[in-house]
Amino acid sequence: MSQTWVDVPAGSGFGLRNLPYGVFAPQGGPRRVGVRIGDYVLDLAATLDDPVFASGSLNAFLAQGRARWTEVRNRIVMALTEDAQRSRVEPALHPVDGVRLYLPFEVADYVDFYASEQHATNLGRMFRPDAAPLLPNWKHLPVGYHGRAGTVVASGTAIRRPCGQRKAPDDAAPSFGRSRKLDIEAEVGFVVGAGSPLGDAVTTKDFREHVFGVCLVNDWSARDIQAWEYVPLGPFLGKSFATSLSPWIVPLDALDAARVATPAQDPAPLEYLRESEDWGLDLQLRVRLNGELIAQPPYAQMYWSPAQMLAHMTANGAALRTGDLFASGTVSGPDPSQRGSLIELTWNGAEPITLADGTTRKFLDDGDTVTISADAPGPEGSRIGFGEVIGRIEPAAR
Amino acid sequence: MSQTWVDVPAGSGFGLRNLPYGVFAPQGGPRRVGVRIGDYVLDLAATLDDPVFASGSLNAFLAQGRARWTEVRNRIVMALTEDAQRSRVEPALHPVDGVRLYLPFEVADYVDFYASEQHATNLGRMFRPDAAPLLPNWKHLPVGYHGRAGTVVASGTAIRRPCGQRKAPDDAAPSFGRSRKLDIEAEVGFVVGAGSPLGDAVTTKDFREHVFGVCLVNDWSARDIQAWEYVPLGPFLGKSFATSLSPWIVPLDALDAARVATPAQDPAPLEYLRESEDWGLDLQLRVRLNGELIAQPPYAQMYWSPAQMLAHMTANGAALRTGDLFASGTVSGPDPSQRGSLIELTWNGAEPITLADGTTRKFLDDGDTVTISADAPGPEGSRIGFGEVIGRIEPAAR
Repeated sequence: MSQTWVDVPAGSGFGLRNLPYGVFAPQGGPRRVGVRIGDYVLDLAATLDDPVFASGSLNAFLAQGRARWTEVRNRIVMALTEDAQRSRVEPALHPVDGVRLYLPFEVADYVDFYASEQHATNLGRMFRPDAAPLLPNWKHLPVGYHGRAGTVVASGTAIRRPCGQRKAPDDAAPSFGRSRKLDIEAEVGFVVGAGSPLGDAVTTKDFREHVFGVCLVNDWSARDIQAWEYVPLGPFLGKSFATSLSPWIVPLDALDAARVATPAQDPAPLEYLRESEDWGLDLQLRVRLNGELIAQPPYAQMYWSPAQMLAHMTANGAALRTGDLFASGTVSGPDPSQRGSLIELTWNGAEPITLADGTTRKFLDDGDTVTISADAPGPEGSRIGFGEVIGRIEPAAR
Repeated sequence: MSQTWVDVPAGSGFGLRNLPYGVFAPQGGPRRVGVRIGDYVLDLAATLDDPVFASGSLNAFLAQGRARWTEVRNRIVMALTEDAQRSRVEPALHPVDGVRLYLPFEVADYVDFYASEQHATNLGRMFRPDAAPLLPNWKHLPVGYHGRAGTVVASGTAIRRPCGQRKAPDDAAPSFGRSRKLDIEAEVGFVVGAGSPLGDAVTTKDFREHVFGVCLVNDWSARDIQAWEYVPLGPFLGKSFATSLSPWIVPLDALDAARVATPAQDPAPLEYLRESEDWGLDLQLRVRLNGELIAQPPYAQMYWSPAQMLAHMTANGAALRTGDLFASGTVSGPDPSQRGSLIELTWNGAEPITLADGTTRKFLDDGDTVTISADAPGPEGSRIGFGEVIGRIEPAAR
């Protein structure tokens, strides 16, 4: 592949092999679709002279499907590599520090899976100490549930500590108030571009035809609310107050060098969950609390692949829509330093972590800022950056 | 209230006191918003000369809020009662049998509650025979979860029997195939018109400012898929293949005479769930299988009111959006003839029901048609009709 004429810093993660999509607005300008290159955002409507990008969301482009995604990617690479285009294209580059970034797409349905064996095992041990940590269905299907699409927010949106009903096991009765166990979940999200008709299942083979790209997700969780409400219908208000999304959607086309096999699956999954290609992904996540690295969850350890999640989610004929988001569930690896939530890092508060400033945390304090970032191997030794999803905790409303 | 010049059959349920909203298309014409009067649909864009109704969904009108909903209702009543308007308005009436009806609004988030004490008790007995039927949280909060908004479909949409993974307790391993326990859930749905900002709770007092109206819901359920998947994160593929909605949204303004107190709530709910007004609703549901009446669930028996559901759903600061739909969960009364699902009517297949043609049912057969209808008391002895939500089961795809 040729070189870009854009000045991309060494190790940026946003070189010509990445080109993730987002929605930005230049100062005083309207929202539009851009791709990131180095420390710039390229205005696609201006560069490609196509009104589908003069939009406040990626959805119209996502709906156009795989052939069009590939064509547009090729045209962007040409615009950023051909010297003859430089004078025309350069004015469409905006320094990323000077623009505002928005939620990159309108979320249709949001599904959250539970695909890390370590995370499911850790939570099973804490929530159901008297039983086997993994429930009997866990190794047979990717367990998941629907979350609230309307509260998926852009990175940087302030996260107000939720109030809710909770009852600790030794409380006589439930009470209402500020969550005392506000947590994060470091996850990876998959963005559906092309929909599917009601009644049709989407197979693991069709993953690439439907899924456009990958982003980072912080699925904020109020553990005390969740623990009291979640039987028998699953998490609800413990999760629905906010879910933060990274500003950049890395296209699947940028991730071929990151594809790996999932860990061995035993028992062998049923036919509809088998894969002929590897869709495990070697993303290395990093979780920072007030700037300090507190965990490094390895996505490559996830038991279920996103192609298996997609096949399962549609096995009953459920339609896909452009803008559907499905997330992996918390990414946790086998080493304690690889756990993607505070409830695991502090073992439900029993083992607080000590930060560099000497303070300790069982869960999040008001004013805390959480930053999740990731990168993955790219072609020819390059790195594919995912940017960051950031959120700062504001005090509860009451 | 004066009389309408439209010929409304006695006992129609669609008199001047009802005026439910839907989306229709006259033969060969585009979709538009209408209200039902007698056996006609009134084209609102033509009658009120307002482009917000020349739309394939109610959403733009729903977003305008309570004051506007009241103003439009008053204008419709004037159009249908003033003789001077008759010659102008009459051409905008279309016989309901000659138009096609559509999903009346674009569903934003779909939440399903579990608000019938009888239903929760019955299912608890069947799914957890060794434990107390009601879980400890049930009388403290309206238990609910998010469903799949993208598979909420219009009444009349064919329902394909889903396939999925299931494992009966005595099976050695799970298998994949057609659901053998396809069921209905007769529910009542509440349609959010005016949204709310992220971070703000909506109180029970504000119910009327946010909720526009009421419809009927059939939350189709594959019990075998559900039973295997639902721990610990709740129902997913057992529900997400389809949820059918009635074509008419009855405005809250039509339901004042139907408002009743909920059954006594013991223990007293926490402060944020208390009500200063009654929002129980005296809807009488009827469930028909292939035309034969099989159940008459009484909505007035529901433990939690829709105002309590709304207050709970937003207590954590979750935003509301125009088009949010929340449903009550299966409506079941104390009498066996009042159960709103086949799993209850046949006690999970142990007591099949016999139909008039001599056939029996544990769950739904291919070709079965289910029709749920309802009405409620209106002012001055009138009845408020909700119409019907209908679905016919098609054979599985594989």
